[in-house]
Parts: sequence; structure tokens; C-alpha cells
Amino acid sequence: MSKLWGGRFTKGTDVMVEEFTSSIAFDCRMYREDIAGSIAHAAMLAKCGIIAGEEADLIIGGLKDILADIEAGNFSFEVSLEDIHMNIEKRLTERIGPTGGKLHTARSRNDQVALDTHLYLKREIGAIARLLTDLQQALAEVADRHQEIIMPGYTHLQRAQPILFSHHLLAYFFMLQRDFARLEGVWQRTDMMPLGAGALAGTTFPIDRHFVARELGFSQLYENSLDAVSDRDYILEFLSFAAILMLHLSRLSEEIILWSSAEFSFIELDDAHCTGSSIMPQKKNPDVAELVRGKTGRVTGHLMALLTVAKGLPLAYNKDLQEDKEGLFDTIDTVKFSLSVYASMLRAMRINAERTGQAVRQDFSNATDMADYLVKKGLPFRQAHEVVGKCVHYCIEQGKYLLDLTLDEFRRFSPLFEEDILEAIRVETCISARNSYGGTSYSQVRRALTQTTAILREQGKSCEKMK
Amino acid sequence: MSKLWGGRFTKGTDVMVEEFTSSIAFDCRMYREDIAGSIAHAAMLAKCGIIAGEEADLIIGGLKDILADIEAGNFSFEVSLEDIHMNIEKRLTERIGPTGGKLHTARSRNDQVALDTHLYLKREIGAIARLLTDLQQALAEVADRHQEIIMPGYTHLQRAQPILFSHHLLAYFFMLQRDFARLEGVWQRTDMMPLGAGALAGTTFPIDRHFVARELGFSQLYENSLDAVSDRDYILEFLSFAAILMLHLSRLSEEIILWSSAEFSFIELDDAHCTGSSIMPQKKNPDVAELVRGKTGRVTGHLMALLTVAKGLPLAYNKDLQEDKEGLFDTIDTVKFSLSVYASMLRAMRINAERTGQAVRQDFSNATDMADYLVKKGLPFRQAHEVVGKCVHYCIEQGKYLLDLTLDEFRRFSPLFEEDILEAIRVETCISARNSYGGTSYSQVRRALTQTTAILREQGKSCEKMK
Amino acid sequence: MSKLWGGRFTKGTDVMVEEFTSSIAFDCRMYREDIAGSIAHAAMLAKCGIIAGEEADLIIGGLKDILADIEAGNFSFEVSLEDIHMNIEKRLTERIGPTGGKLHTARSRNDQVALDTHLYLKREIGAIARLLTDLQQALAEVADRHQEIIMPGYTHLQRAQPILFSHHLLAYFFMLQRDFARLEGVWQRTDMMPLGAGALAGTTFPIDRHFVARELGFSQLYENSLDAVSDRDYILEFLSFAAILMLHLSRLSEEIILWSSAEFSFIELDDAHCTGSSIMPQKKNPDVAELVRGKTGRVTGHLMALLTVAKGLPLAYNKDLQEDKEGLFDTIDTVKFSLSVYASMLRAMRINAERTGQAVRQDFSNATDMADYLVKKGLPFRQAHEVVGKCVHYCIEQGKYLLDLTLDEFRRFSPLFEEDILEAIRVETCISARNSYGGTSYSQVRRALTQTTAILREQGKSCEKMK
Amino acid sequence: MSKLWGGRFTKGTDVMVEEFTSSIAFDCRMYREDIAGSIAHAAMLAKCGIIAGEEADLIIGGLKDILADIEAGNFSFEVSLEDIHMNIEKRLTERIGPTGGKLHTARSRNDQVALDTHLYLKREIGAIARLLTDLQQALAEVADRHQEIIMPGYTHLQRAQPILFSHHLLAYFFMLQRDFARLEGVWQRTDMMPLGAGALAGTTFPIDRHFVARELGFSQLYENSLDAVSDRDYILEFLSFAAILMLHLSRLSEEIILWSSAEFSFIELDDAHCTGSSIMPQKKNPDVAELVRGKTGRVTGHLMALLTVAKGLPLAYNKDLQEDKEGLFDTIDTVKFSLSVYASMLRAMRINAERTGQAVRQDFSNATDMADYLVKKGLPFRQAHEVVGKCVHYCIEQGKYLLDLTLDEFRRFSPLFEEDILEAIRVETCISARNSYGGTSYSQVRRALTQTTAILREQGKSCEKMK
Repeated sequence: MSKLWGGRFTKGTDVMVEEFTSSIAFDCRMYREDIAGSIAHAAMLAKCGIIAGEEADLIIGGLKDILADIEAGNFSFEVSLEDIHMNIEKRLTERIGPTGGKLHTARSRNDQVALDTHLYLKREIGAIARLLTDLQQALAEVADRHQEIIMPGYTHLQRAQPILFSHHLLAYFFMLQRDFARLEGVWQRTDMMPLGAGALAGTTFPIDRHFVARELGFSQLYENSLDAVSDRDYILEFLSFAAILMLHLSRLSEEIILWSSAEFSFIELDDAHCTGSSIMPQKKNPDVAELVRGKTGRVTGHLMALLTVAKGLPLAYNKDLQEDKEGLFDTIDTVKFSLSVYASMLRAMRINAERTGQAVRQDFSNATDMADYLVKKGLPFRQAHEVVGKCVHYCIEQGKYLLDLTLDEFRRFSPLFEEDILEAIRVETCISARNSYGGTSYSQVRRALTQTTAILREQGKSCEKMK
Repeated sequence: MSKLWGGRFTKGTDVMVEEFTSSIAFDCRMYREDIAGSIAHAAMLAKCGIIAGEEADLIIGGLKDILADIEAGNFSFEVSLEDIHMNIEKRLTERIGPTGGKLHTARSRNDQVALDTHLYLKREIGAIARLLTDLQQALAEVADRHQEIIMPGYTHLQRAQPILFSHHLLAYFFMLQRDFARLEGVWQRTDMMPLGAGALAGTTFPIDRHFVARELGFSQLYENSLDAVSDRDYILEFLSFAAILMLHLSRLSEEIILWSSAEFSFIELDDAHCTGSSIMPQKKNPDVAELVRGKTGRVTGHLMALLTVAKGLPLAYNKDLQEDKEGLFDTIDTVKFSLSVYASMLRAMRINAERTGQAVRQDFSNATDMADYLVKKGLPFRQAHEVVGKCVHYCIEQGKYLLDLTLDEFRRFSPLFEEDILEAIRVETCISARNSYGGTSYSQVRRALTQTTAILREQGKSCEKMK
Repeated sequence: MSKLWGGRFTKGTDVMVEEFTSSIAFDCRMYREDIAGSIAHAAMLAKCGIIAGEEADLIIGGLKDILADIEAGNFSFEVSLEDIHMNIEKRLTERIGPTGGKLHTARSRNDQVALDTHLYLKREIGAIARLLTDLQQALAEVADRHQEIIMPGYTHLQRAQPILFSHHLLAYFFMLQRDFARLEGVWQRTDMMPLGAGALAGTTFPIDRHFVARELGFSQLYENSLDAVSDRDYILEFLSFAAILMLHLSRLSEEIILWSSAEFSFIELDDAHCTGSSIMPQKKNPDVAELVRGKTGRVTGHLMALLTVAKGLPLAYNKDLQEDKEGLFDTIDTVKFSLSVYASMLRAMRINAERTGQAVRQDFSNATDMADYLVKKGLPFRQAHEVVGKCVHYCIEQGKYLLDLTLDEFRRFSPLFEEDILEAIRVETCISARNSYGGTSYSQVRRALTQTTAILREQGKSCEKMK
Repeated sequence: MSKLWGGRFTKGTDVMVEEFTSSIAFDCRMYREDIAGSIAHAAMLAKCGIIAGEEADLIIGGLKDILADIEAGNFSFEVSLEDIHMNIEKRLTERIGPTGGKLHTARSRNDQVALDTHLYLKREIGAIARLLTDLQQALAEVADRHQEIIMPGYTHLQRAQPILFSHHLLAYFFMLQRDFARLEGVWQRTDMMPLGAGALAGTTFPIDRHFVARELGFSQLYENSLDAVSDRDYILEFLSFAAILMLHLSRLSEEIILWSSAEFSFIELDDAHCTGSSIMPQKKNPDVAELVRGKTGRVTGHLMALLTVAKGLPLAYNKDLQEDKEGLFDTIDTVKFSLSVYASMLRAMRINAERTGQAVRQDFSNATDMADYLVKKGLPFRQAHEVVGKCVHYCIEQGKYLLDLTLDEFRRFSPLFEEDILEAIRVETCISARNSYGGTSYSQVRRALTQTTAILREQGKSCEKMK
């Protein structure tokens, strides 16, 4: 098949090379954006007198027909036509005749593919923003529903201090809020219009880039044509956003997996979110959490891939940059899937409050409160820490917990202990007492829950804009 | 040496383990931030009545003396004291007695190290913002100085279309502008105050986190204590920023290296930015550009390292997170060095306008203009492209360039060619004609240069805030 | 559709979860290995008396029919059946009735998928070994064909010393020889039989793992069942091999791109391996080399992804490990494609000996020879280096090359220069003189070419074994 | 300070550039190798008549004095002298006069630094091989000591089937055995002598590379000079080895951390390998395991860094390659530390057999054995799986375990159950029954332990060779 660039060549492309260099297998995903961009381009060409109004109408009509064909499944993409742009342009010319050849006036595939990718990613960022907000909503809902449940807080996977289960969930809410803010930054830098950069240097035709930008809903233009065709920052920044988001989900996944283990038994996932074993009849595996944790690697890999691809490339466009899309598309799919399935899994998850409560009571996670008690009685913190450390050691040897000790026993370690020590280290007291701003106390968590409502409302408004 | 947490233990730490788990070798770099944080904390404790005013004064005085000692080089850090926090607290208690033990009231090393890192990174982000702006300034200066120089623009490292050298440099200016915007985003998410989160759950003391935030110049607080001690997003986001920035510099480096080669000979770097060979007496190597290109890998590696470290960690603090600092510090150093040396190297670089001009004239980079010429005479673009492709092929066979052809020869390819074709494909015409917004024409580049002044002014103001 | 593990569950799997956790979309690629493994397993079960001989025959017949169906395109894989194993087993039972249910006796999907992947990768390693050897063959052929061509050798992309073009190509031959050796290592660690490990702990049936290994051509067994189902080292090691191999190709690609530029013009690629521009009619772009360079990032990304996935996973199998396959498959495809296309591209490439020769003559790459000349006359090397450095500097100022200087001029820099200096720094002399073992002299390169024949013969024999 | 390559330059190096491009801060670590290489080189030069015997003696004597100075701490390295090679050569000339200038005859820093790195890495590979073997020894010792301890085997972190604790440990033994095999591969490709490649093209002096190789204990030479100076494969391959090894340790670390948690309580680490909390007096944290898990990211990052650095570099040497060393050195340190500390930590760890046993008994991990029981009574596996799944579901509802059921209850699910079912699903029976080769049965584990002795003996011999 004859290429659209073949004039200078004396020989056709090797078939293997054709397949290797073709991108149609994956860039066909952007057909809507490619057509929308071409329609705006044709309208602009007519508005600026570069082509005639009737020519533009003919082109735009043809493009709309092609869009309908694709959506109806009546379009077959061809590898030999390399990419989505050539596939559509070729078909256009077949449909409307030589006027189709005027569509590519004043543009190049370099700025065209940049335009398509910007449009496509903008749309997907909007979708991801909504899914992200919904996952935050799910976290807030579940936290709200379980405000009284106490569990051990961990550091180093050792029980550290009692916390509210809802406080724990809200930690993820706030992580995701930062992810949302980062996504808004990516949006801003994706919301830049590259068309009109031509191959690399701009074009000799009297085009109106601002018109195209308005038609397509962009709020900024690339200010430099070389930059416009060689920039892949916005994709890298999106991949960075996604890698950090997936990292957050990998942390939550680790916890879901731990909590689902027989040893923890803090939660039970719904059967709908688990799978079984082909050999062990008793198994109920938290596959979704494991897969999301695993897919963190996948997204990190895509980020790393593109950083490696783009390293050391001279300006402007190089074919290496074609490698930007598959990783981007796969990342978008992975992120959307992970966010959706997580929102649904969390909403259906059951919490075993008895087990989480027991885990707190049969432990030493109230030791800090005991030290704080001594500090409030006047002992410098470092000495209080030492006293309690010895007391814990004594308990371990005796097979007791702190609440099992008698006042006499307490006093062996310090004369500052009085009757009120037992009340001071009760689990509920420990929770209530951590009332510093952002702490785990009941009232702090209530405050935070109220705050989430306002945040979700704000994010909802931002989502509206990202369309 | 006895640990500050040893009460519960029956046995000392293995020396090898001590060395392995100690972080003092690298976190000593944050001594200023650690002391500033402790001073604010002590002042807050007194203000809230948790310690006495005189105790706070004693503590603050002691801390200031230690700061003076460190800056005077009269302080030796000890591995057995694990980290910067313990090193300073131990010395404080030696100096001022048991009151020193009160400093750690209502805080933990978990929130303390988070505070130090936030403070440290904020300061360094400010410094990097200034260096980044200065490099943009250098690019704008050099572009301004060489507005008339023409060179080939490349795609696929093949000469594509003539461009202005200044247009090429400005592409980097605009890339760096996006880097600056990203850095502002990192700043916002670094400008969050974690102290008061305690070990993970908040504290039982009636502290005032907003006071500490104001004292230390933070505009936001972490809203959730678990998040406050386990968040490393802001570091990951900084590393992502840095990886993308270094990628930009790696692309410029590749060009500097190409342009310095005998084959291109477009520029000559100053002797001050080159080194020689121990064996080949004629060599003058663009080492700085090569190293910056190489250091892109280093920063990418640090990003990858931390993404891997943080993957799958349950809340809240885990010791793995101690691995966040060395990569961060090394990245800061690398970025600062690269920005500084680049600004200086670009300012001193000489451009060989004769070579860049010749490279444009003895080539086919005016072929697009020839096609555009035909389009303006009414030929659909695809046909014009075909005509010019054949014409180029003819020239290659004849050993000629397009400007060498006679009108007769032109007409063999299309009857649309007229006398004005030679003017239309003159290099200066090609440049002037690419006058679309953001294109390489003289007037577009002048416009862009004016714009840089405004941008630099704005960035300067932002830098003021990032202090 | 009812799951094969559903007995314990009260509720079906969410459809979205089904799609998310299913692997059939990519693991269907291993249908041949899955069936071969099942046939060997069934034969072993019968041999060990675990199932009856007729049952084994029935199962094996059914499996062969399914294989035929798949290869004839008469088999549709279903997402709800999760993976290749369940898809085939389900169909088997549909075909042959309840006896099909006996096939899964004494095995689990955990060891089954491990077996499939080992078998699949072994086959592909063999194919890659042959393609790798063919690329080395191509390098040796082209080197052999162009033994006399001289070009500049570069360090820091600065012309350094004259070398033979064939010497340069052979550098890649020897790199690839190491890649081959590494691939043999991967083969050895892939050639280990996991089946019989069961889910993780072995099986209670009296199986014969050695029989299965022999049937399937494995030379080793996994010695530990937990290791057998959780090991992904061999995939990681393959990805490391591939990342290093692609890195080698990326370096060669960079050179192909440089050499194809107008500035170098050292080679011309065949039209069959290039593509054009949709806008610039004169363009002929070395797309294949650019894509291979770009795909280095892709493979590096896959390595990084799996390293991240596997980090910190407890024994034995975790669902995260399902993420091992897509990156592996894509890497296999990428490597095979890159090796094939490179062999064909190199064989068809034309070398412009005039340009490479000119590049050597009009330069200072003979400066080291001039220093060596002085050393041989008795000057310590460091002083000789200094003398020649000054002489080069003089030439640059005078617009001359070293061969343009008169004896008088030479003597201004050192009295040791005599008439024979001009002969000593002739380019052909420089080449011939670098006759140290492995150097660029004509005779060393001839020796190396002879050596390549022997190496290729040895590798050919190794390829025979890797089947 | 005057450079050793300054003849051609008119201006000194910028101080900032000097610091940026200097490598002495890290390559000084290779002083022993640099001196050993120089001594062998000088001896060869004399042997080949390139310098006089007395000159070689003078040089060698000077070098030995410098070595003694460095080891005595009487040598100060200077940044302005760039690297270890220049630092030593400069000092040599100061000591012995102009004869020192003859040492660099017939070599370049490019092949010199390659030689140093090969020598250095060879030495460290030997050390790592020994530490790796010792860790395997520790695993075998601990496994041997605890042959009777039963614990749950996990998949998806769900209890799956009972296994022996020793079987679990031995899984790591066999992983590390593969690491050892990979390390031997790295050794072979590091054991190649680059000296004599000169800057890139060989040398004009009649040197004897085989002599130098023998002197320094290399068994192979680089066959191509360009390859010799630009090869960094062996470092990449070492980093890949290290990344996979650290991954193994990260998996074991995850388990150590899980097992140390209150929820599992399977082990107790020695106090010597734990640290406490500055705020929570009860804490005993498994810091070493956490840090090793974290350091996996560090090593992965170094691998990624060098893959990125080397991507797309043309031949031969480029300054970017200077970035190879810091990551290599840090990886060596990290790996050695991790291996050492792990061997010591495992040997001192206590296992809580009561807890691991209880975890098996109070669970359904004998469900597979129940299914196998039915299969042996004639039921196809898929049906048996279904029966047991229902039975498990019944138990969960009744709050029972399988061993609590009466024969009547069993028979409700299948008439095939008989009296012997209770014996068949006893934990010890389950263990003993998994007697397939490589399974967890007592006798298989004993066999495996015997095997470890032979393997350790073999590895010990290999270690002897890697010196």
C-alpha cells in the first residue's frame, strides 16, 4: 500500500518494519479525539480562509461519518497505514475525494498526535478525579459508620497505641486528597493546546491557534512550537501521580490482606471480592487487594519506562516518543479499575469489632499513657519512659497486662502512682485523651468527618471543571 | 552506651546492628531544622502550661548553645545515639540537667523527623526555585543575544526545517517554566506541619499545633496523625519533579554534546567547562554536559528506590522509611549543582553561526515551504507533498539542493511553480513565514522573549514566598 | 457461571472483580505448554497408579482434541473461568465427563502455572538464542565485508583515534556474546521442574516428579515445594538479561541515528528500514533504530515492575505474582522483534567510506600517535602529552591539521621530531600501529574475525541444546 | 593546580566544574587496586622493553611507598586532581621525579579505571560469596535445630496447609543457592582484563596483555578494545544479582516482621537485633528486618540508575559512565551488611513452637487432606473439593474445626467418610503425608538437610576460587 509520505522513497517498507513501527494497534483508542481535533482544525482552516467553507463542510461531514462508522464497528484499522491519523485521513479521502487531502494543511502528525493525547488524557483525568473522589467518599462513609470501633495502632507492625478504626481509614482519605491536588496539577499542564506547532517550527499558513483551543476547550496554548511537539512531561507527571496513588492503595491493600488473615481477623471481605483455591477447599483469598498491591509495580514500571525512553533525546520529535502511549493507556485502565473496585470492596467489608477491641485490651499499647500520667505528676518524660519500660518488662515476666497490676505493684516502680492510674490507662481513656488537633480522640475524629464533607463538596466542584 | 528507650530491654544492641540502623551519618545534615523545631516545641509547651516558662528558657538556651557548637565545629555526633534527635537531646541533658528530659514531652521521633524533613526540604525547594529561575534567565539572555542565528531544526535527528537558534533555546525556557510550576506544587504539599502527631495517634497533652506551625512558618497542618508520621508523598513528589527536570537537562545535554562534536561544530564550550584526556592531547571533552546527562539516571534511581521502599508498607511508621533521606539529599545536591553549572556554561558558550547557517543552506529543510507554496497555489497538501518528495529525490540524484534548480527544472514536477518559488524557499523567508503563534519567525521569537521577562518577574515573586 | 472452587462461598464473584482478577486475556498464550504439562501429569498419575490407565488415555485424548481445537481457532476462552488452566479443564470435563475432574489430582494451579511459565520461557529462550546468534552473524558479515574502512573512534563524542569500522562493529559482537552467556545462565535456572509442589507443600499422592521432568525435557527439579510455587527469579533474571541486551541495542541505535544524520553521513539505511514524514517531503527517518532505542525503556520498565511487585511478599504464592506474565510476554516479543529487525537492517545498510575517511583525515585523532612517537624517542609520556597539546593548539589557531605542519614547525615544539614524523602520524600507520591484542590494527581485526567463526559455531551448538 | 592534560587548553577549569566532575571522593576506595594494576603495568612495560628495568623498579618502589602511606593515613587526596589515578600518579612523580611520567605509557585512564573496577569487584564478589554461603549455613543450622516444629503454610497470607518450619526456612536456602549460581556468572564476566585497550583503540606500544592478566589473576582478556573501555555490563549484572538477592531478603524480612507481631507471635528476635521507641516504653521493633526490606529499594534504585545512565550512549567511553561507581559501592556495602546481620539474627532468633502449632490446629489447613482422602476413596478431585468446601462452610457456621466433627456430621457431606477420617486429617498425618519429592514431610526435610551439607561444601570450594 502506498504511503502518504512516499514521494522521496524508491522502495517500500519492509513488512516486519511496518509492523514494528506501526502504532495503530494502540493509538486507535484515541479515534474520538483524533476526529474532534480534525474537525476543529478544518473549521479553523475555513475561518482563516486557508480552505473554502464548502471544503470544510465536506471534510467535517466525512469525519462525522467515519466517527459513526467506528462507533458502529464498521471500520477496520490497517497496520500498513501506521497510525490512527493516517487511517482516518486515508478513509476520508476515499469518501470525499481529493478535498480530503486538504485536511492536513498547516499541521503535521507531530502536533496532531500531541493534540490527541492531550485531549484523551484530559478526558481520562476527569474520569479518574471522579473515581478518586468516590473512593474518598467510601472511606468517609465507612469511617462514619464505625466511629466507636477501637483497634491497635501500629508502628513497625508492633502494637503501639490504641486508635479508632475510623481514624485509621481517614488517614487514607487525606492521602487521597493530596493525590487529588496532584491530579489537578497534572490537569493544568495537560490543558495546553499543541496544534499549530506543525512538524516542529510552526506553520507558514495564517492559522488561528486560539480558535482551535477554544473549540476544543483548552485554556492555554503551548508558547513554543518545538516544545509543543516534544513535550511528554504531562504524561510523566500523570504517571508520577498514578505511581504515588497506587502506592497509597498498595499500603491499604497490605492492611486489608493483614486484617483478613486468620492471625488478625479484623475484617471480613465480602465473598464477591474474594476468590477460592483450585485445591484447598477452605480458602477465601483477598485477591483484589493482592492484585492492586501487585499493580503498583506495573504503574511504577510504566513511569520508569518513560523516564528511560525520554532521557537524552534531542529536540524535537523522535520516534522513541511513540513509546509513551501503551504505558499511559495501561496506567489509566489500572488506576480506574483499582479505584472502582476499592470503593466497592470497602463499602461491603465487615469489621470484626470484637477482635480489634480484644487486640487492644490484651496488650501494652496503653504504656505511653502510663508514661504521660507520670509526666503529669511531675516526672521528666525520659524518666517516666524508663519507669514504664521496667514495668512492662515485669508484666511480660508475670504474664500480666498493665491493667492487671495492683496499686502496690505500680508503686514498686514509682511512688507517683495513685488510685487514678487504672482509669488513666483504660483504653477508652487513652483514645479520648489523644485530643490534640488531628489526633485519634472521638471528638477529633468527629471533627475530621465533618471536614471530609466540605472537602468532598469542593472536590466535586473541581471535578465539574475537569471535563 | 545506654539507650533512651532501653527500659524494656534486657540486653544491649549488637554493635553491627547499631551501625546498620543508625541514621546519624546522614541526618546530621538537618541539625538546624532539628533545633529550630525543638525550640518552637519548647516554646509551645511553656505557652500551653505543659512545662514551666523557666524550663522552656533553659531548654531553648541550651539548644541555642548546641547550635553554636555545631556551627563552630565543636560537636561530635555519635553512632550509638542513632540519630540527630537523640544526639542533640542527649547533649542537652548533659548541659542543662534533667530538665532536658522534658523537651520530648508530647512528641515522638516519628513526628520530629517528619518535621525536620519538611523544614529542610522547604528551605531547599526555595533554593532550587531560585537556581531554576536563574537558569531560565540564562537561557533567555543567550536567546536574546543571538536572535538572528539560523540553524536546522531536527526531528529524528534529521534536518527538518530551519529554525532560529533562540527559538530552540526558548523551548527549554518553557519546559523549565513547567518544572517551576511543579515545584510550587511540591512546595504546597511540603508546607504542612506534622508535629503533634506523636508516635502515630496524637498526644494526651494539651498542645497547640497551630502555634508551632506559625512559629515555623507553615501554612497548613496535617489533619490526621497517622498520615502525618507515615506520609512520604512530598518526598516522592519532589523526586518526580527532580527526575523530570533532570530529564530536561539530559535532553539539553545531549544537544550540547552533539553540537560540540566535530561533525556538528555548532558551538564551542568555554575551556572552563571542559576537561581533557590523560592520553589524547587534542581532546576537549564536554564533561559537564555528559555528567548531567548521566546524573539523570541517578535521580531516576532515587525516585525508583523510594517508590519501591514505600510500596506495601502498612501504617503508620516503619523503619523502612528511614531510607527516604539519603536519596533525597543526594537529589537536592545533584539538582542544585546541575542548575548552577548549566547557567554558567550556557552564558559562556560560543555559537558558530557560520556552521549553523551552512547546515541549513546545504540541505533540504526548505522542502516543506516548497510544498506549502504549491498548496497556496491551490494543490491539495497531499499532492504537493508528493511533488516535492519527487523533486527532492531528483536533487539527491543530481547532487543539488532545491535552491540550485532552475524554473524549468521546477516545472518538470508541477506547472504551478513560478518565478517567486526561489524567494519562497530562501532560508530567511522560511523562518519569517513560520509566523503562527509560538512558531519560529523573528517576530514570534521577539514576542516570546518579551514574555520571558514577565514570566521571570512572576517567578521571582513566587521565589520570595518560598522561604 | 459456577467456579471450580466455590464450595465454601455463599455468593458469586462481582463481575468487575472477575474481570480484574482474571488472567485468561494474557495467559491463553501458554495453551500449548498447559496442555503438554497436563498430558505429562496424566501419564504420570496413571504410571503411579493414582488414576487408571484408561482414565489417563481418556484425559490425554481429550486434551489433544482441545489443542487441535485451539490451533484451529475453534475455542473461545472465557473470562469467568479466570485462567488458561480452568478454561481447559472445564472444556475437558465437558468433553469427557467426570473423569476430567481427576486431572487436577495431586496438583494445584500454583505449581501448574509455574510449570507452564517455565516451559514457555524455555522455548522462547531457545528462539532468542538463535536470533541473538544471527545478529552476531550479521555483525561479523558486515565487519568482514568492510575490513578496510577507516572511521574516527570517539570518546565523549569527540573524535579520539582512528579505528576500523569493522573493529567498531565487532565491539557489539563481543557484547552480544556476553548476552548469550547470560542467557545460558537464565536457561539453566529456567530448566527446573516445579510440578508436584502442589499448592505449596507437596502432595499426599505417591507421584513421580522425576518422570514428569523427563517427559517434559527438564534436567532439574525444584528441591523445595514452597520455593517452587513462589519463585519468580528466573523471570527477573530473564528481564535483567533482556534489559542489558536492549541497552546494547540502544547504544548501537544511537550510533545508527548519529551516523544517518546529515552531519555524520557515515551510513545510509535501506529505504525498507526507514519511514518518511507526513509533512516534510525530504525526510527519511531511521525509525527502526529510534524505536529500538525507545523500547529499551519498555523492557527496563518491565524489570522494574516485577522487582517492585515481588518485593516484600511473604511465602508462598500471592496473587500479586500474576503480574509477572504480561511484562514477560511483552519483553519476549520486543526482544525477538528487535533482534530480527536489526539483523536485517545491518545487512542492508550502506557505509559511506569516503565520509568516514575524510572525518579521520581532517582532524586531530592522530595526536596520540604523535605523543607516542616522542615517547619512543625517549620523552616521558607526560611531557610528550604536553608537547602535543601545545602543537594541537597551534594548529587550531593556524587552521591546520598536524599533517599540514612542516618539520620546522614540528621542531618549534620539540627537537626530537625528525623526518619520519609525517609517516608516523599517517592515518593508515595509526591503524596498523595499534596492534596490541584486541586493538584496531588490520591484523588484530582479521584475527578477531576468525575468532567470531569459532564463537558462532560454539553458540550454534549451545542453541541446539536450548530446545 | 595544573592538570595533566592541560596542554591544549588556554584557561583553567572552573572550580565548581572541577568539583562536579571529580570522582576522587568515591574512587579513592580503589587505591589498592589502582596501585596493584600500576605495578603489574610497570613490570610489563619493563618486560617488553618499553621502559628500562631500573625505571620499573623505581616506579614500583614509589608505588609501594604510596600504598604504605595511604594505609597509614598519610596521604591526602585532592579534588583538583580529579581521580584516584591522577592523585597517585602525581604523587609518584613528586617522589621519584620524571620517571613517574613513564608509568602512563601505553595506557589511558579509560582502561585503567576499567581495570581497577574489575579488580575491586572481583575481590568483593569473593567476600559476598562467602557471606552468602554463611547465611545459607545459618538457615540450615536453624532448620536442623527445629525439625519438629509445625506451622501453617500460607498462600495469599491465608493459612493453606500445615508445613514444617524447617521446610519454610529451607525454601530460602534454595533461593540463595540460585543467587550463588548467579554470582558465579557475574564473577566469570568480571574476570576479564581490560588493560591495554588504551583510550579506546589499543596502543602502539608492543605490550603484553596476557602477562598483565596473569600477574593480576585474570583468566580472560577483553577481545575488543572499544568494548573493554565502554563495557559496564558486569556492573549491571552484579546490580541485578544484588537486586534479586535483596528481594529474597525482603521476603524473609516481611515474614520476620509478621512473625514478630503480636498477632502472629511465632518468633522472638533477640534484644540485640531490635530497637525501642523514644516514646512508647513497651515497644520492641524488628528494625533490622525492616531496614533490610527497605534497602531492597535502594539496590533496585541503583540498578535502575545505571540502566538509565548507560541507555543510548555511543561508543566508546563517555563521562556519564563515571556514574557507575557510587551505586556499585553502596550496593556492595548494603549487601554485605544485610547478609551478615541476617546470619547473626537468624541464629539468635527464638521460635515459639506452641503458637505455631496452635495456629495449625485451630484452623482449616487440613482441608486439602480431607479432599485427598475422598479422592483416594474414589471421588474425582473436583467433586471432593466441592464436598469439603461445603463442610468447611458448615464448620464456620457452627464455630467448629474439621477435627471437631463427628462421623455422622462428616457423612452428611459424603457417604465415603469412614472412621479413619480423623486420623487422616490430624496435623502430623498431613505433614507426613506430603512426602512427594521436595514436599514438607519429615523425611523429605531430612533428605533436604543432608543435601544442604553437600551444597555448602561445593559452594565453599567455589568460594576458594573466587579470590
